Amino acid sequence: MNGYDERMTRLSIDADRLYASLDGLGAIGAYHDEPTGLTGVRRLALTAEDGAGRRHVVAAMRALGLAVTVDRIGNVYARREGRDPRAKPVMMGSHIDSVATAGRFDGCLGVLGGLEVVRTLNDAQRVTRRPIVVAFFTEEEGARFSTDMLGSAVAAKRIALETAWSRTDRAGKTVKSELEAIGFLGDAPVELDPPHAYVECHVEQGPVLRAANVDIGVVTGVQAIAWHELVITGRSAHAGTTPMDLRRDPGIAAARIQLYLRAMVLSGRYTKQLRATVGVTQYSPGLVNVVPNRVQMTVDVRHPDDEVLKKALGELVPFYAKVAEEERVEVQHKVTARTPDIAFAPRVQELVLRHAEGRGLSFKKIVSGAGHDAQEMAAVCPAGMVFVPGEYEGISHNPREFSTKEQCANGVNVMLDVVMELAEEEGV
Amino acid sequence: MNGYDERMTRLSIDADRLYASLDGLGAIGAYHDEPTGLTGVRRLALTAEDGAGRRHVVAAMRALGLAVTVDRIGNVYARREGRDPRAKPVMMGSHIDSVATAGRFDGCLGVLGGLEVVRTLNDAQRVTRRPIVVAFFTEEEGARFSTDMLGSAVAAKRIALETAWSRTDRAGKTVKSELEAIGFLGDAPVELDPPHAYVECHVEQGPVLRAANVDIGVVTGVQAIAWHELVITGRSAHAGTTPMDLRRDPGIAAARIQLYLRAMVLSGRYTKQLRATVGVTQYSPGLVNVVPNRVQMTVDVRHPDDEVLKKALGELVPFYAKVAEEERVEVQHKVTARTPDIAFAPRVQELVLRHAEGRGLSFKKIVSGAGHDAQEMAAVCPAGMVFVPGEYEGISHNPREFSTKEQCANGVNVMLDVVMELAEEEGV
Repeated sequence: MNGYDERMTRLSIDADRLYASLDGLGAIGAYHDEPTGLTGVRRLALTAEDGAGRRHVVAAMRALGLAVTVDRIGNVYARREGRDPRAKPVMMGSHIDSVATAGRFDGCLGVLGGLEVVRTLNDAQRVTRRPIVVAFFTEEEGARFSTDMLGSAVAAKRIALETAWSRTDRAGKTVKSELEAIGFLGDAPVELDPPHAYVECHVEQGPVLRAANVDIGVVTGVQAIAWHELVITGRSAHAGTTPMDLRRDPGIAAARIQLYLRAMVLSGRYTKQLRATVGVTQYSPGLVNVVPNRVQMTVDVRHPDDEVLKKALGELVPFYAKVAEEERVEVQHKVTARTPDIAFAPRVQELVLRHAEGRGLSFKKIVSGAGHDAQEMAAVCPAGMVFVPGEYEGISHNPREFSTKEQCANGVNVMLDVVMELAEEEGV
Repeated sequence: MNGYDERMTRLSIDADRLYASLDGLGAIGAYHDEPTGLTGVRRLALTAEDGAGRRHVVAAMRALGLAVTVDRIGNVYARREGRDPRAKPVMMGSHIDSVATAGRFDGCLGVLGGLEVVRTLNDAQRVTRRPIVVAFFTEEEGARFSTDMLGSAVAAKRIALETAWSRTDRAGKTVKSELEAIGFLGDAPVELDPPHAYVECHVEQGPVLRAANVDIGVVTGVQAIAWHELVITGRSAHAGTTPMDLRRDPGIAAARIQLYLRAMVLSGRYTKQLRATVGVTQYSPGLVNVVPNRVQMTVDVRHPDDEVLKKALGELVPFYAKVAEEERVEVQHKVTARTPDIAFAPRVQELVLRHAEGRGLSFKKIVSGAGHDAQEMAAVCPAGMVFVPGEYEGISHNPREFSTKEQCANGVNVMLDVVMELAEEEGV
C-alpha cells in the first residue's frame, strides 16, 4: 500500500475557506457586465489586473510557508517540502488569467484548490513523503496573445521560450515586455523537471455533469482543438452604387463560412461532439456605407477524437477556397493552435474514480471540451483532472459561471485524496 | 432669353488647373492603402486632416477674392458678388470630408470644380447678374458621426443644430467639440437663405456612365436610403464545451441577416436596383474561444423608388424578429438614416442636358445611388447634379476611385454653363 492507509489519513478541506478564497481572487479585475447585469472578472494575461491577481496568490503561497519560484515565462511554482528530499513532487495547478468576460471559477479553482489542499495538510501537520507543488501557468486562455496553454506548453517544451516571448497582443505588445511590465519575468529555467504526477481540479465548463446530477467528472482526456485565423480580402466599394454582382465583399464570405460551420456541426456527420465557433469578426474599414475590403475572423473547431477533427478540417479548408472563388475574394488562413486529443494517465483516472467513490460522491467519466494546462503536463508526467459541475448548463467564459460551495469542495476533497495517495508513493 | 446669349458667353475651364487642384487637396490626409498598394485619402469629418483640408480650400477661396462665411455647423460659403446686389445667388457645392479609405474625387470635384468656375469667370472678367456662392458642407459622408449630409441637412432645416452638435463619434467626441477643436465652429446662422438654384458636380460612384461610354450624367434624383444599426444580444459561452443547441450566438444571427440581405437583392423581387450592404460587424468580447454575447452591425439599403424601399424594409424588419426568435437572441434595430427618393428640379435637369448637348458631349439620365448634399438643397431651392464617369467600374470610397482629366473637365464645363445661365436669370 505504499505506506498509505486511507482510513488513517483521510482529511477534508474547509469548504467555506476555499469559497472565500475564490471570492477574494475574483474581486481582482472585477467589472460590471452589462449583458448579464452581474459582476464579472477580467484578468487578461499579463495585464495590470493579472499582475494584481498574481501578487495576491503569491502572497497566499508565502503565507502558507511555501517556497515560490517564478520562471522565464512567468509560470509560478510554490513548493512544500516532503519527508524525502530526493523524491519528485506531486504537482497541482491551473491558471489565474481569464478571458475578458469571465466568472471567478475557471482556472482559479485549481490553483486556490491546490492551496486549500496545502492549508489542510498544514493544519493537520501532515507531512507527505513527496514534496507538493502548487503551480499557476501563464496565459492559459490564449485570450490576449492568441495561443492558449502558453506557459504550460513552454514548461513542457512544446513551445520554445523565444517563440512564446515574441507573441504579440492586438496592440503589438510582446509577452516578454508584458511579463517585465508586471514584474513576472522570473529567472528560473522554464523546462520543468518532471514531477511524479500532476492533478488539476477544474469546473467542467459544459452541461454534462450538472444535467446528469453527478458530483465528480473523472476526466479521461481532452478533445482535439484547431484554431484558424482567417484574413479575407475583397474590395471596398460604395454601398449605394456598386451593383451586387460587381462586389467582392469579404463580409459575405465570412457569413457563409460562419453558417457553413454550424451546418457542419448540426449535420451530425462528425458525430454530435463536434464544436465550431466564430469568436471574432472584424470588418475594415468598418463604415456603414462602404463594402468592406477586409474581414479578419477566427474559427475554433474541436472534437474528442483527433481523427474525426482531421476529417472535419479536411472538409472545412477546401470550403474556404470554394468561398474565395465564388465570392471573388482571397481567403488566407493561418493555424494559430492545433492540439490532438490527449488521454490522461489511467493511474490518475483510477485514483480520482476510487476517491470519489470512497467519499460517496457520484461520478462520471468525461472528455474535456476545453483545453487545460493538464494536457501539457501529460507530456511530462502522469497527469489527470477532476471536474466539478457548473450551474446554468455549465456556462463558462461568462460572469454567470457558477459552481456551488459544495460542488467546489467535493472536487478539491477528491484532489486532496488523490494528491495524498500519490505523495506517499515509492521511488524517486 | 433672360439677357443670356450662349454664343456670346461660352467660356471653358482650365482642365489642367482643375486636375492640379484635385491633386493638391488629395495630398492632405493622404495615406498608404495596403490592400490596393495605392495612396488613398483619409479626411474623416472634423479630424485634424479635415481641418487642414478646410484651411487649404478656404485659402484658395480667399485667393479668388471671395468673401468666406463659416456657419455654426462648420459649413463654409464663399461668395462672389454679381451685378444686382438684391438678386439671390446661384450656389455650387459639395463636401471635402471623406470616408477612411477614399480617393481624391468624391466631393472634392464639386467644391474645387466650383472654385474653377469662379476662377474662369475671374480670368474672363465676367460679372454675372446674380452672385455666385461656392459651398462645402460638414460631414457629408456620415463616416465619423453616423449621419450623412449632416451639414447640409442642418442648413436645410431637416436636422436641428443642437441635434447635429450632440452627435458623437466612436470615441464619444461630439460634433460641436470637434468643430471647436479644428477652429470651424463659425458664427454665421445655419439656416440657409434660399439661393436661386444649386448645382453640384460629382463622380457617379457607380459603373453606369463608364459602361455606356457616356460623358455626362443628367441626374434626375437620388435614391431612397435607409440605415439600420443593429445590436444583437446573445450569451457568451465557452467555445469548446457548449453544445450548438444550447448556444445563443449573435454571430450566427448576424451572418443570417447578412446573407438574407444579399438573397433579397439577388432575388430581383425589388428590381435589380435594390442595394444592401453590411459595412460593420463588431463582435464582443471578440475572443477566439468565446461565443460572443453581442454583435453590433450596420445595414444600408437603397432603392431609387421609396415605395419599393419601403416594401423591402417591410420584409427585412420582420426577418430580424424571425432570426431573433429562431436563434434565441435579441435583435434591436435603430434607424440611423432614412431619406426618401429625391427628384431634382426639371429646370436644372434640362439645363444640364442642353449644355452637355451644346458642348457635343454624350449624356444619359441617371438616378444617383449615393446620397448627396444636393438632395438637402433640393428642399430649399431648385437643385440638380452633373455626374461624370469613373474608371474601374466607377469604384468609389476606395483609393482606386479615378476619373480622367477630361471626364472631370467635361463635368465642370457643363456646370460652368449651367451656372452662367442661371446667374443671368431675372427676378430676385
